[in-house]
Amino acid sequence: MNVFDLSELESRELLEGTEARFVHGERMTVAYWRFEPGVPLPEHAHPHEQVTNVMSGEFDLTVEGETRRLGPGSVVVIPPDARHAGRAVTDCRIIDVFHPVREDYR
Amino acid sequence: MNVFDLSELESRELLEGTEARFVHGERMTVAYWRFEPGVPLPEHAHPHEQVTNVMSGEFDLTVEGETRRLGPGSVVVIPPDARHAGRAVTDCRIIDVFHPVREDYR
Repeated sequence: MNVFDLSELESRELLEGTEARFVHGERMTVAYWRFEPGVPLPEHAHPHEQVTNVMSGEFDLTVEGETRRLGPGSVVVIPPDARHAGRAVTDCRIIDVFHPVREDYR
Repeated sequence: MNVFDLSELESRELLEGTEARFVHGERMTVAYWRFEPGVPLPEHAHPHEQVTNVMSGEFDLTVEGETRRLGPGSVVVIPPDARHAGRAVTDCRIIDVFHPVREDYR
């Protein structure tokens, strides 16, 4: 059985002020992020569908020019190729899921 | 922007002793489960890849006959068509992600 323990997964600082851990299946990637307060997520886009889940804290997310303040329990579906950016308002924990696999995060 | 607030999503009792909420994208479904202690998940299989994330509590998961006790931070990749079953040891919260969309959960 493919069981992972998040506390034992390598943490990567892909952006300054963040920690990220990843689990890859055959068809999906799950990303576990922690952002420090004030950290910006630069605008970007990718062909993967993304579902963003805010577990704790507040995060300002902009998708295709529209900005919303997200908090615990917020879920956002980001379509393939949609331009998105953001900024951590507080320390926050976010789980992103992607299809297909984010080969760039392996 | 497709923003959902979990606290405002309809909760469904697909199994006695559980609550489930769902967010569907175009290619993925995310399921937010709460299990009461002792509730069994009957063995089943589906063609969707599944990634199970235990957010709180303990859950005994069996995949293709192998059983592991999962806790907070446990992540399991369940391949398409793998037979799986389980039992909540304690009250627990689990997030499952699926590709493709679980049309049966719409």
